[in-house]
Amino acid sequence: MIIGKVTGSVVSTRKNDNLIGSKFMIIEPVQSMKQTAGCLVAVDCVGAGIGEYVLVALGSAARIGSGQESSPIDAAIVGIIDDGTELE
Amino acid sequence: MIIGKVTGSVVSTRKNDNLIGSKFMIIEPVQSMKQTAGCLVAVDCVGAGIGEYVLVALGSAARIGSGQESSPIDAAIVGIIDDGTELE
Amino acid sequence: MIIGKVTGSVVSTRKNDNLIGSKFMIIEPVQSMKQTAGCLVAVDCVGAGIGEYVLVALGSAARIGSGQESSPIDAAIVGIIDDGTELE
Amino acid sequence: MIIGKVTGSVVSTRKNDNLIGSKFMIIEPVQSMKQTAGCLVAVDCVGAGIGEYVLVALGSAARIGSGQESSPIDAAIVGIIDDGTELE
Amino acid sequence: MIIGKVTGSVVSTRKNDNLIGSKFMIIEPVQSMKQTAGCLVAVDCVGAGIGEYVLVALGSAARIGSGQESSPIDAAIVGIIDDGTELE
Repeated sequence: MIIGKVTGSVVSTRKNDNLIGSKFMIIEPVQSMKQTAGCLVAVDCVGAGIGEYVLVALGSAARIGSGQESSPIDAAIVGIIDDGTELE
Repeated sequence: MIIGKVTGSVVSTRKNDNLIGSKFMIIEPVQSMKQTAGCLVAVDCVGAGIGEYVLVALGSAARIGSGQESSPIDAAIVGIIDDGTELE
Repeated sequence: MIIGKVTGSVVSTRKNDNLIGSKFMIIEPVQSMKQTAGCLVAVDCVGAGIGEYVLVALGSAARIGSGQESSPIDAAIVGIIDDGTELE
Repeated sequence: MIIGKVTGSVVSTRKNDNLIGSKFMIIEPVQSMKQTAGCLVAVDCVGAGIGEYVLVALGSAARIGSGQESSPIDAAIVGIIDDGTELE
Repeated sequence: MIIGKVTGSVVSTRKNDNLIGSKFMIIEPVQSMKQTAGCLVAVDCVGAGIGEYVLVALGSAARIGSGQESSPIDAAIVGIIDDGTELE
């Protein structure tokens, strides 16, 4: 997984039916984890807010354990970091 | 997922039978998401047009929720972003 | 998926039994898609020749729709691009 | 897999239910394996401590063979390297 | 898949039970395929020796066709290249 900061959200009205109701958040990985990815879009599964540092599961892991097995997603917020600022 | 702009399409006459009827679009990720990938080819599942900003699911996610479970695809357009220009 | 040019092939006599009969082609991605990967080896499923521009499926997608479900492959040529030179 | 050094851990109180009890370790890949990834977060399955060099399985492999099939994780520590310092 | 040279091996005494008996080899991808990855650790399934050029399957492909379906591995040597020096 990687840790990133939620920097915003994005709206998509016309989308795959299995994505209806999903919240798409823009994630900026913390500096030390940036080599893995630039910013990315992750579906929120834990009620994260803008500015929070979150744990993001990538790939098939994103669809596991949160009732999204049939959604076309490859990134999900699966946890909120208690003190993420120390990671920057 | 990543967000990118549809910049064109590509035609393949000789292809895997399970790809017959698929529309192959060329996607250029927005600048902030470029570290993940350069341009790539994604199958369109939502009727996206050239110039539109779209949400692209990568990996096994591309085959979920749109009847493409048996197609050899690793990237699919799963949503159209309402206002993508603000992401550039 | 990415688009690349078939630049050669490679021979492996001692290999996994499930790869017997597979044709291993060396693929050089087109410039705009190079950030995803450098050259790679893909199994040919559509009869591609050296110099042709091809559509390559990566990851688990490589094993779908062409009877290679039980082969240890992570990249497959799944289509031949009609006019690939315009992509360079 | 890649080899990395455990440099710390991270705490997430609000998280996916299937992650309760998981230990999240921060991994810094050894220099020669850094091109694959920057630092990342991996779940510990073998009792690794800070400062140890470990073998990290990525992707779906992270959920195999350690009873974590239903956890949304994409990286797991699956072994401790006997002499990792020689890899730096 | 990528082609790399076996440059060494690594020993892990404390590891996941499903990895007992696995040989962990360090692979250095050939120059043209380095953009995909730096060095990595792959499980040997074909009896490769140090200095040999090998075909490495990545991701879920690593667990297919060699009886390692339940091992937490994401890279496996699946073939030995007959003449790998020409690839450098």
